[in-house]
Order: sequence, then structure tokens, then C-alpha cells
Amino acid sequence: MSNDQLKMPKGFILAGVAAGIARKKGKLDVGVIYAEQPCAAAAMFTTNRVKAAPVLLSQRHISKGKIQAVVVNSGNANACTGKEGINTAWESAKLVAAGLQVKPEQVIVASTGVIGVPLPFAKLKNGILRAIAKIQRPTTNDQPLTAFSQSIMTTDTVPKIVSASFNSNGKKVSITGIAKGSGMIHPNMATMLVFIMTDAAVEKDFLQTALKNGVEPSFNMLTVDGDTSTNDMVMVLASGQAGNKTITAQSRESKIFSQKLSQVCRELTIMIARDGEGATKLVEIMVNGARNFAAAKQVAMAVAKSSLVKTAIFGNDPNWGRVIAAIGYSGENVDPGRVDIAIAAGNRKILMCRNGIDPGFSEVQAKKLLHGKELKLLINLKQGPASATVYTCDFTHGYIDINASYRT
Amino acid sequence: MSNDQLKMPKGFILAGVAAGIARKKGKLDVGVIYAEQPCAAAAMFTTNRVKAAPVLLSQRHISKGKIQAVVVNSGNANACTGKEGINTAWESAKLVAAGLQVKPEQVIVASTGVIGVPLPFAKLKNGILRAIAKIQRPTTNDQPLTAFSQSIMTTDTVPKIVSASFNSNGKKVSITGIAKGSGMIHPNMATMLVFIMTDAAVEKDFLQTALKNGVEPSFNMLTVDGDTSTNDMVMVLASGQAGNKTITAQSRESKIFSQKLSQVCRELTIMIARDGEGATKLVEIMVNGARNFAAAKQVAMAVAKSSLVKTAIFGNDPNWGRVIAAIGYSGENVDPGRVDIAIAAGNRKILMCRNGIDPGFSEVQAKKLLHGKELKLLINLKQGPASATVYTCDFTHGYIDINASYRT
Repeated sequence: MSNDQLKMPKGFILAGVAAGIARKKGKLDVGVIYAEQPCAAAAMFTTNRVKAAPVLLSQRHISKGKIQAVVVNSGNANACTGKEGINTAWESAKLVAAGLQVKPEQVIVASTGVIGVPLPFAKLKNGILRAIAKIQRPTTNDQPLTAFSQSIMTTDTVPKIVSASFNSNGKKVSITGIAKGSGMIHPNMATMLVFIMTDAAVEKDFLQTALKNGVEPSFNMLTVDGDTSTNDMVMVLASGQAGNKTITAQSRESKIFSQKLSQVCRELTIMIARDGEGATKLVEIMVNGARNFAAAKQVAMAVAKSSLVKTAIFGNDPNWGRVIAAIGYSGENVDPGRVDIAIAAGNRKILMCRNGIDPGFSEVQAKKLLHGKELKLLINLKQGPASATVYTCDFTHGYIDINASYRT
Repeated sequence: MSNDQLKMPKGFILAGVAAGIARKKGKLDVGVIYAEQPCAAAAMFTTNRVKAAPVLLSQRHISKGKIQAVVVNSGNANACTGKEGINTAWESAKLVAAGLQVKPEQVIVASTGVIGVPLPFAKLKNGILRAIAKIQRPTTNDQPLTAFSQSIMTTDTVPKIVSASFNSNGKKVSITGIAKGSGMIHPNMATMLVFIMTDAAVEKDFLQTALKNGVEPSFNMLTVDGDTSTNDMVMVLASGQAGNKTITAQSRESKIFSQKLSQVCRELTIMIARDGEGATKLVEIMVNGARNFAAAKQVAMAVAKSSLVKTAIFGNDPNWGRVIAAIGYSGENVDPGRVDIAIAAGNRKILMCRNGIDPGFSEVQAKKLLHGKELKLLINLKQGPASATVYTCDFTHGYIDINASYRT
């Protein structure tokens, strides 16, 4: 279905415009979200020591109270831009605040793109003013959800939007998330830009808890290239316009809300992995039989980050030796003589390694399976009850092409 | 100069033959080193939990006492091959021992190549017998040093041999190291196969200390693709035939011996980085101003492992933003506002980032510098006195080509 047929939660108006910040002419590169009422807000930000100006500003604003607007640009990360960069982020918050009659502290600012280059404020200002005008006087030609989701894309090849809904005492509650991300993707939190809106009334502390619980098994289990960005954030705004009773940690609805929020996070995560720079395949690395979750995650991440595993998958090569080598150097105290490794796609599964050695599988059949666009690599350590799934993609010529010439 | 004009230490005889284990027809793939006398021996082995059969066997033999022979094959790693693999390694040690009239426990066994496929013992046996015959009856046509160094190559494009020498009380002492390694290269120890021979008389404990000290700033500071192999070892054999007084930790010569051994390790490390799979450039990541060595190494390694940094270097893109992003997620508590980043080649140097921001450098000049085959990335954290250098290479289409089709 068309993006604009996706159910938008009540109380949010979006816009996206082309402001000439991105290199590609005419590409939408400035987006604004306006909430009709101040929203309970929760967010998680990059753990990179190098934090872009908008991340520093938004962290402060989120901690202060309710949020009523978001402004985001692509094409320039406003990272490593010194005092001037901080000033640009603050000026853009003020500009949005003035145009939409909210306080500057109620505005979240986000940027994504090239690092270390001053963000051209004149262009940004022009974009912000036009986006605000669209929010104030939408026309029937506007496709605001599509436009906003395109305005945050960099090397993404597709916009990424997911919706979910449920009933809360007869009131329909919707959650819609919009993400960008394709390269410089690696946890821990955060690994891209994600804006989630819900019309649920949700208490702020519980919203933060629900977001954290949603992010841990999704965005924090995602790696494209092992590089953690300077600009990443995942945020959720709750407008309360669904009319439901405010959800807190004690509410009966807390569970369904958390579930649906986690589902949105997970589906966006998969969309990002599938659209990883240069990727031809979505790959899920599932580790079972680990001592605990941390161990399972460590093993899955080592495999998901291995350039040798990822190039073998690109080449349709059932080279399980590289998988077990990555398991071996993961840092987790595995027993190689108990490790099983299988490849799965659809409802087919081939065991390539049993108790550390080749059980005699058909290379031809395995190669056939590897030609699929969605693969699962199943690893059983047989050491305990815990499991973890990491989402990644293959490693291809496309990645080299994109990143050898990203700025030039 | 031709490899065989390199000075060989006294007391060693080498051979390399083609046994049909490697896929490429006629490629030399079995090598043998014979020491005329039992040698003091030291070695370091892979830290991968998955250890190949020859690693397990050689660890035992090194711990038992002197070593008199080495047998190595390429084309098959004899890793993840179960009991049969252990048996194959032991049988090959016995075969070498019988042919050269030494004890099986005095034989080091090494393998490199594809993981998880049984090593064809009949082919190996044939190769070992022919290599022994060459050692026993060398002809004037033989180029044993070249042949041995070729017999251990896999995706290497050049053989890697380094010699050094010094005088010990009027006796000339030589050290020659031979390495293989191009992919699946990442510390900690070990990251490839390295065989070092010296005619010095060296006490075993000191030899192990000197090797460890030589390996830490060289092979342990090397990464091609972040993948630690299952088969790696660095070993040194000391024949004592130079006639010098045995070197111990207390000897006056301990310092010069350690220096020369470290020099051999360092030069081989650089040869491996330059010959990294698909590499077009040798890159040294030098971190200064760190609190301590571990911090410096952690930052240098994060940069050296970043796919985004390595593809930018391939594309001649002076994208220092990716470098500072990698510094930021390295895990070390850096202050981004104090970081300097420069690129250097030959005697030219361009500062791309000063105190975390662009000081206004010429992109054109930086691009020109990046076209060189040997680059230094200079990072100053301004937090303390420590420094570290990591050796790596760029990340190219060649790497994808080699590793998408390694087995097929």
C-alpha cells in the first residue's frame, strides 16, 4: 500500500521539503513533525563519545519535559562542527518554535549526513520555513508521510515506515514509526534516526521504559558495518489524542503497548538491515543454547560483523568454517566441539556443521538456499538456555562503491 | 634481490613442493624446515577458541622441549576436522620424523587454508616425502627459500621473507623470518603463519620472552579484516650454529637480539598489511597523546577496523569525520574537542581536523596525498604520553572478489 494510506496516529502533522542541503538536486532533505498538543516523549541517543550538535541539544530538550515538534535534515550531520554547529542546531529549534508557536525547548533537532562540514543555515532556514508553511496549509497534493520519510534518507534506497495499532478500552491506539539508516549502522544505541509517534496517552517514565525494552532486541541487535554513528537517535512522541486512559507501568494496557512498540521497532530494524548499504540479502543470525543473553549476543554480533562471513554469504558460499572461526574469536568461552551451524530460508534448513565438524551436507543444496534474499544462520552452542538474534546483511561491491565515493 | 640471495641462518635446510592440496594446479603447497641440530624453540598461537588440529599438536610439542623440524601445508587448514584431523596432523609429524630421523615430538605441524574440510592425507604424505627427498639431496636448481615461502601462501600475492643480522663477540648471527598472511588477519596473536629461524644460541625462556616482546608491537598490531584465524602461529627456532655464547635474559647481547627479532617481526607485519586481501594501500594508524598504551591501541584498532574509514581511503576521500566517529565509539574515554587528525605520506602531512573540527584544509591536496601507496593516519588525543601504531590496509572490491568466491 502507499505510505500515505498507512494509519497515522492522531495529533501529528508532517512535512518534508527539498532545501538543497543534500547533494542530489531536488532530494527532500528537511522534515518537520508537529504535534497538535505537547507530547510525552522518550528517546535513546548514540553512545558514541563524539556526539553531533543536534544530539547534545535534543538530549537536553528531552530531559526538560514535553515535546511538540521535531526538525530533521539529511545531507549534513552537523557533527564535529564546533560552537557554530551548536548554534545552528539551536537557531533551527528557535525557528521551528516561532513558526509553530511552541517553545524552543519543546523542539527535537536531528541531522544525518556527512560529518565535519558546517551545516548551511541559510538553506536549512529556507527549508524549515517552507515545511512549516506546508504544515499550516496542507494541500490535497501533499503526501506528508512519504515526504517526511524521504526527507530523512541518505544512502537509503527505500523509505521505512511501520504502523501498528490496538484497542484500549474501546479506543483505537495507533503507533507509527519512521526510520532512516543504511550505513554507519552498529549498536549500541542508537544506530540511525527513528521517529515513532503514537496517539496513546502514555506516562513519560513508562514510555522511556517501553522504548528501552523495544530498542534492546531490535535496533541494538542490528549491524550493517560495525560503525556506530555520531548522530543517532530513536524517539517516541505520545500525543494522547486517542482518548485512552494514560498508560503507566501499572496499567493493564502496558503490556500490549510495549508489545506493539517493540513490534514497530523490530520491523523497522529488519527494514534497515535489508536496506544496508550495498546489501543484496537480509541475514538473521540466531544463536541458541548460550549461557545467557549477553553471551548469545556477543557470539551473534561477532558472526554478524565478520567481513569474511558476510562476503561468503554475498558469494552464496556455504562456508561455515568462517562462521565457527568468528564464534571462536567472539570472546565467549564456547566449546567448539559442541557447536551446530545451519542455514535456513523459508521452510528449508540445512545443517552445515554438527558438533564442530561437517556432517556431510550437500553443497549444491546449500548454495541454492543461499541464493535467497532472506536467510537465517542458526547457531546452537549447547551450553545453556539463552538465545539472541542479530539482524544484518551481506557485504558486497555495492558497499565499497557507496563508501569509496560517499562525499565525492 | 632474489629471495635466495637473502642470508639464511646456519643450520637450516628448507624445501617446498606441489602436492595437489591447493586448488590451483602446480602451486607449491607443502613445505618442510629441517634443523641440523635440535633447536631452542618459542611460539605464540591463535587465541581463537576454535583451534585447528596442527595448533593443538604444535602447542604440545613446543612445551615438551627442542624442535628439529617443521611441516606446513597450504590449501587446507585442517581445522574443525575432528579426531581425523588430529590424527592427520600426528601422522604427518611421524612421517617427517621418520624421514629426517628426529622424534615426532620434535616436529612442528602447521596448516592454512579452507576450514572444515578433511585434509587429504595421501596427497600430504606424497608431498612430505618429496620435500624430505629435496632436503636430503638438494640440487643446484632448487631455490629452497623461495619454494618454502611459496608453499605456505594462500591468497598472498607475494612471498614474505625478511632477514637481519648482528655480531655477537665476533660471531655473525642471522635471523630470517618467513610469513604468510593476507586475509582472516586480526590479533590477538596470532594472525598468520610466521616461521623465524636464527643461528644464534638462545636460551629457551629468553627466546619466548623476546618473541613475545617482538610480536606485541608488530603482529598483534595488525588487522586486515578483523577476523582472527583458527590456525595461526608465530614460531622461532634457534639452531645455535652461529657459535655465539648462549644468549639469556642476562646477556649483553639480549638487547640486540631482541631488537633484531622485533625488526624482523615488524617488517613482516608491514609486508602482510601491504599484501592484505584486495589491498591497494598500506595504512599505518598512529595514535599519540593517549593515557596509556592500551587506550592508544584501542583507538587505533577501532579506526583500523572501520569499514567506512577503509573504504574512504580506497576512494581517496579525506573523510576525517569517519575517523573521529570511529575514535568516538572505540570505547576509550576521549575528549572529541581535543582530537587532531592528520594524513601523511612521504614527507608531506595535512592536518584535517584540529580540536575536533575542520581547520580549513585543502581537499584537493589531501586527495592527492591519498593517492599514495603508503599512508599514515596520525591521531593525537592530547590526553597523555602514550602512543600505538596499528598496521592495516584499505578495503576494496578486491577483498569482496576474493572472499565471495574463496572456495568456489
